[in-house]
Parts: sequence; structure tokens; C-alpha cells
Amino acid sequence: MSVSAFVESLHQFLEKDQISENETIREQHSIDESYHKGGLTQVVVFPRSTEDTAQILKAASRHAVPVVPFGLGTSLEGHVVPLKECATIDFIEMNAVLDVSPDDLMVTVQPGVTRSQLNRELKKHGLFFSVDPGADATLGGMAATNASGTTSVRYGVMRDQVRDLEVVLASGEVIHTGSRAAKSSAGLHLNGLFVGSEGILGCITELTLKVYGIPEFEMAGRATFKSVENAVQAVVSLLQSGIPIARVELLDEISLKQLNHHQKTDYPEIPTLFMEFHGNEDGLAQDVEFMKEIVAMYDCEAIEFVSNHAERTRLWEARHNLAYSFIHGFPGRKMMVTDVCVPISELAGAVRHAQEKLLELNLIGGVTGHVGDGNFHVILMIDLSDSEEKVRANIFNESLVAYGLERNGTSTGEHGVGYGKQKYMQREFGAALGVMQQIKSVLDPQGILNPGKLLPAKGDAVDESVSKN
Amino acid sequence: MSVSAFVESLHQFLEKDQISENETIREQHSIDESYHKGGLTQVVVFPRSTEDTAQILKAASRHAVPVVPFGLGTSLEGHVVPLKECATIDFIEMNAVLDVSPDDLMVTVQPGVTRSQLNRELKKHGLFFSVDPGADATLGGMAATNASGTTSVRYGVMRDQVRDLEVVLASGEVIHTGSRAAKSSAGLHLNGLFVGSEGILGCITELTLKVYGIPEFEMAGRATFKSVENAVQAVVSLLQSGIPIARVELLDEISLKQLNHHQKTDYPEIPTLFMEFHGNEDGLAQDVEFMKEIVAMYDCEAIEFVSNHAERTRLWEARHNLAYSFIHGFPGRKMMVTDVCVPISELAGAVRHAQEKLLELNLIGGVTGHVGDGNFHVILMIDLSDSEEKVRANIFNESLVAYGLERNGTSTGEHGVGYGKQKYMQREFGAALGVMQQIKSVLDPQGILNPGKLLPAKGDAVDESVSKN
Repeated sequence: MSVSAFVESLHQFLEKDQISENETIREQHSIDESYHKGGLTQVVVFPRSTEDTAQILKAASRHAVPVVPFGLGTSLEGHVVPLKECATIDFIEMNAVLDVSPDDLMVTVQPGVTRSQLNRELKKHGLFFSVDPGADATLGGMAATNASGTTSVRYGVMRDQVRDLEVVLASGEVIHTGSRAAKSSAGLHLNGLFVGSEGILGCITELTLKVYGIPEFEMAGRATFKSVENAVQAVVSLLQSGIPIARVELLDEISLKQLNHHQKTDYPEIPTLFMEFHGNEDGLAQDVEFMKEIVAMYDCEAIEFVSNHAERTRLWEARHNLAYSFIHGFPGRKMMVTDVCVPISELAGAVRHAQEKLLELNLIGGVTGHVGDGNFHVILMIDLSDSEEKVRANIFNESLVAYGLERNGTSTGEHGVGYGKQKYMQREFGAALGVMQQIKSVLDPQGILNPGKLLPAKGDAVDESVSKN
Repeated sequence: MSVSAFVESLHQFLEKDQISENETIREQHSIDESYHKGGLTQVVVFPRSTEDTAQILKAASRHAVPVVPFGLGTSLEGHVVPLKECATIDFIEMNAVLDVSPDDLMVTVQPGVTRSQLNRELKKHGLFFSVDPGADATLGGMAATNASGTTSVRYGVMRDQVRDLEVVLASGEVIHTGSRAAKSSAGLHLNGLFVGSEGILGCITELTLKVYGIPEFEMAGRATFKSVENAVQAVVSLLQSGIPIARVELLDEISLKQLNHHQKTDYPEIPTLFMEFHGNEDGLAQDVEFMKEIVAMYDCEAIEFVSNHAERTRLWEARHNLAYSFIHGFPGRKMMVTDVCVPISELAGAVRHAQEKLLELNLIGGVTGHVGDGNFHVILMIDLSDSEEKVRANIFNESLVAYGLERNGTSTGEHGVGYGKQKYMQREFGAALGVMQQIKSVLDPQGILNPGKLLPAKGDAVDESVSKN
């Protein structure tokens, strides 16, 4: 491997301003929004086209130089952090919305387009893109991590939206993983394989995505419960009833306290569901009556609905600002977020387990959850200078992962693996991990694509420290 | 390869009645419901457990004997037809519904469970399984081909329902491709990869699937239009409006004529949409008014709604019996069905092209389509003893595939590739086919899993006869 020879070769086909060895730029491209740390990337490259990307990967292949694809660095498990001497490919200059096709409810974009940029463009056509992971991430990054969020209970995760990806392989070869058809039974499902592959199989250079008509009528609601169990059981009943829930978010006592404190709201500080429904006015009016009956069966303390735009926006802004409420509430501390997803029948137990572990390990944190998916987060606020507290935080995270995996859940519902959760992959997948490693080996024989992420290399030491409860 | 040594070794771990070399049994397991023909399987094996299946595959691997997994043989592209000396593994004795979890809206079944068997079981819990491919296929077969059908516009295709598969690999190793979590960002997406893999990567021995609560209220409708273009354009508008369409099926003039003739109905013989909506009563009442406005913009001749169970059933039975109406209408002829899926904006053109080609090639056939997905079928009735007519039928099929692929659609929306459409894979996927072949090679190095299906072997001659229009 020779990074300098690689950089040299880049100058043969890229403009000077597409290559940066500036230290500040390199530092900015060596971190994400998490507490995970790694090395410093050697060079940052800014492709402007698929052809640029193909040339970059051919050169990387020739010189055996690892590459890390980069969107906006909003990942949470060290996905873009260099673990070896490497080059970073920043797709920010490939940020065009290439095609909007309202008849096909479909859009084609470059990977550097952000979620908010796409939604601004779609609004002109009465359309919206459904996946909302909180951060204003790039769509390339969202596909690479299979992002999801509050609306996934209704519209699905990132993988469900992808009709086609243009991908540059390690060899520099360009493939399309799908088509513009809404469904297909042809070939092996490469769309699904490349979504969530975190840059270890190729670099995404174009995405064709499913979009939706903006709903005729939207309504939001808030329901408070005596216990997390009651709240979760109510959601199960709502889901079974077929009520068109577009979002359903659980916030625990501590999260609401933090929200009230930071945002000057006065929400009751007991387990609460924030909900949203998409449909038509008469239908939702009937659903409201039905919902009141359902939640009453689970000792709902109060349920309120709002349908005007300003009130709905206020509710969801509060929910969106939850992480910031914690960050601002604990200056000097760094956020660490867990991301376990369990079968919904196990969710109440998992949340209770998390709350007990928070107390037992004396950690600061609140629970929030995409209840409809069984995916919940604990937002921990950690003093990184306190190594003993860091140990407790890791024990906490591992305890939650162990709890989830024992109940046939997953270590990450939406944040992805990066290198933070790689150590759990053997335990989560067992023999299936071997299949994943075989696929990786055959598609990237030199191991130049985002090395050290998603999959442990064959024979890598497995972290056995995951506690049994 | 020694089939006799393989059969010998089977007797070491299977009961006698799990192995059949009876010629009638072998013949029954060497065909599907299509016109595709192949060889005769050497032996049919009936595993009763995952362990049986693992042992069978270990023995097959040891003796290098190809195996073909078999459900009920309802496939349409020669998926289960032997192309080499091989053994057939019939999963019909693995037909238990292992677990129904209403709280998780999830069910675990063995691969030999049929769709109707599952729905009978689910009905007791107020639940239903959404994928309906017409035939009462096994769920293992439906997963292997990524089946879909009339309800996919609302609930998605088979792949969307799969949370976890237990799969026995060529080596006999058993893996789980997912978990019981509703979503995950961990590892590579093996669920998606194995669904639709047509037995070339492994044998499915267990499926964990998403199910739904039976809707509170269902309504069906029928709308007639002056032209196919008007009908398709109306569907685009309905989809954009967010109206909860659960099914939307297009039938052309010839299909309606056949239906009326066979089923003694008196539907107007002009382009017609059969529709179904799931929601609540007030919501659908409001949607009806909205729909009337929308279809009026596209010169709808008449639109009628029915909500009582008997009338809805009559409508859908008619639609379901369409294929039989053709079969009974043309005794002595064999059905051949095309399955192209195009972006919905291209659907009207594709249907018109198909109708013109029918006339031009002097073939008997009608067009029906899952319009919401852009997937349409032409049911051709062919005299297989007339070799010249067979040639014309093949020209027709190839012309439709070519039309679809040129518009970035797919050669098969839901029937799969089998060996009937393998010749189109190079054209459909280009360089991506190489990636699929690499995955196949590394997971089945001896090539014993359903050889000759789905993917052409590397270097296989590609059928270049696909006409350009």
C-alpha cells in the first residue's frame, strides 16, 4: 500500500480542488457524531460524478489503499472513523436531485442530497420522502446504514424505499442493483444487500427511491399512562386494530423531565406516547373514538389530539429536540445512545430492564422508543474524562444488547454497526456471520472498502464480555 | 456424482417412507404448472425436520448430487423442473404453524404450510397473512420466488413480510437470516438475499413472517373506462392521493369477455378496474366521494362500490377465476403467462403494446394487471402441438420483456425466473449479474443447489434473440 502514490495518481483525473490533504479537513472527516474515536484519514477526495468515483476506486484498488465513504458524518457507531491508513471519499459535491417522477411516486438522487433538501424539492409536487432519522443526513449515508426513524412504523425503513442503487464496486466496476419497477422477482436481491452495507461492499453513487403523496389530513396526539407496560400494550392494540398510525413514540419520566426543563413545556412527567395519524378527516374522527376506547382499557390517564399544523409541529419539535435537551442539560458530558430493537411483546420488559440498570449503574439517561417497531433508545450523558463511568456506560450498553439478543431482537434497530457494535455480530448472527463474511470476501478480496466496519474479519477475537443480563 | 450412493446414504438417517423412487411420484415432482419441461428427478425425499434437511444436504454435498427443493409445484417458470440428474426435496411434511404471536403481529411456520392453511389459523386471532399469489402455494415456495399478488400494492411483496428464515446451506450448515425484531441495521441483509433465491443458495426450513390485523371495514369497487390509458392514469391519481387502496386490478376487453362467458357474469366488456379498500367506515365513505371526483377526471364511464361480504367475495372470485376462464374456454390449449413489471408511468404504453402484439402475432390472450405495482400479465392460450404457434408465443413473450427492460422495468414482477427467464438476466442486470454469480459461487461452490435456475452460469450462452421491440 502506498497512499502517496495513490494521491499522485488521483491528480491524473481529478481537479486540484477535489483532493485535500489539509489537516483540518482530514480531522473533520475522521469523526462522526459519536464518542467513537479512530485514526486520521490521509486524504479527502471529492468526486463529482460516478466516473470520478469509479476512477478513485480503481486507483485505490491498484494501490491497495482503503477507502471510507463519507456523507455528513452524522453516524453514531464510528462508521466513518478511519481504523487504518486510508482515504475518505466525501460525496457532498454529488448532491443533485436528478429526477422527480410524480406518476411513478419515485425520485432519483445523488448520494450527497440531504433529507431536507429532497423534501423541499418534493413538496413542490405534493410529495414527501418518508424516512426521518432525526439528523439531516445524506441519502447515501441513510442507505448505507439502513436508517429509519419515527415514521417507519407506517412507511418502512430506508431499505423499503430503495428501488435501485448505482454502486461502484471495489474494482471500479459500476452496477445497478435494481430497476424502476415497483417490484421484481428477478435475480438476487442486491438492493437489499447493498442497503445497510455501510460502505463495505461498494460506494453508492445514485439512488432511486420511493416517495409518497402528502397525506390529505394529519392529526397528532399525546397519551399518558401509569406505566410503560400499559403504554406499550395500548400500542399493540392500536397496531392490531389497523388504525393508520404514522408515528408512535414513547418517552419515559426522565425524558419528559428533561424536555420540560429545556423547552419550557409542561408535559406530565409520566410515561407518554406521542402519536401521529395520516388519513382523511372523517376516517380519523372515527379512529379517535375507537382509540379512546382502546387506550381506556390500558389505564390511560389522558389522551389529547391536535390537528392544526402549528400544534402538531410544536409536538414533534419537542420530540426531535429530546437529544438536545439532554446535551444542553449536561454540559461537559458526551451523549451515548443505545439502539436495541426487540419483538414488541418484549419491549415493556426491555424498557423496565433499562430503567433498572440505569439506577443500578448510577448513570444519567432517559428512555425513548419507536414503540411500533420495538426499537428503543437510552440517551446516556457520559463524562468521558471519568474512565470508571465510561466502563459503567459500556456495561450498560452491553447489558441492553444482551437482553435484546436473548429475546431474538437485534443489537441495532437503526443506527447500524460501524465499529461500535461489530463485537456483537458473532453473537447476533452465529453461523450466518460466516455467510456475510464470504460475501464480503468475494466482492472485496483486498479488503479495501471501509475496513473494520460492520463485520468482524474472519478469526477476529470476539468480545465475550457481553454480560448475561 | 453417484445418485445411487446418495440414496443409499439417505437410508442411514431417514425412515423408509421418506424416500421415494416410485416413477409416478418422481414424475409428479418433475413438473410445475407451466409449459416448461425438463428431465425426471431420480428420487424424492421428504424431510420431517430441519435436522433431516441438514443431513440430506450434507449427503448431497458429499456425493455431489444436485437437489431441487419442492413445495406444491405451483411455479410458472420451471423452478422445480430437473435439468440434471438430481434429487427433489419435498417439504410437504414440514407443514406446522409453529407459533402465532398476535402481540408481535408475527407468525413462525414450516415451509410446507400453505397460504390458506395459515389464514385459517390466523383468523382465530383476528389476523391475516397478506400475500396472495392466486395459487394456494406453500409459504416456503412463496418465499423462494418472492411471490406477490393483488394485495401487494398495499401490504408489500413476500420479501417485505419476512423477518427471519431458517436456511440449510449447501454444506448442511443451518443459519438464521434475521431475527424477531421488526427492523434491524445489523449485518448484511440475508433475509432479502434468500427471499427470491429460488433454492440456489439454500433450502428454507422455517419462516418468521409479519401478519396484519383484519381490517375494521372493507369495501370493493369496480370502475369502467374508455381506454386502458384512462384507467391507468386514474390509478396513478388515486395512489398519489393516499387513498388506502388494498387491491387494484386492471382487466382488458378480452379478459372481461372470457370472464362473462365462463362465469355467467355481465360485466361491461371495456377496460375495468377491480378495486378494494381497507379502512374504517367513515373514512372510506369520505374516500368514495374523493374517488368519484378523481376518476371523473379520467373519463370514467361508471364506478360502483360494494361493501357487503357476499358481493365483495363475488367480485374477487371472478377476478381469481380469470385464469380458469381462459383454461376452460380453450380446451386442448396450454396457458402461458407473461409477467413484466414496468414503472407505472410506462404501464399504459406497455399494455397497448401487448394488445397490438397479440393482434399482430394472431395469438389468443387477455391482459390483466396489478396496476398499482405496474405489473401486468398476458394470459396466452397456446396449442403446444403447433410448433409454429409456440414460436409466435415466444416471440410475443420476448417482445414484452424487451419493451419492459428498455423502460427500466423487470422481466418478472412476481413469477420469478426459474429457467424460463434465465436468458434475460444478463440483459436485465448487466454487470450486476456478475455480483450475483460471485455470491452463488461462494455459497454453493459445487453448484448442487437447484442448478440451471435463476442465474445463468458464468460464460453460459446468452439468448440474444430478444427482439428490439
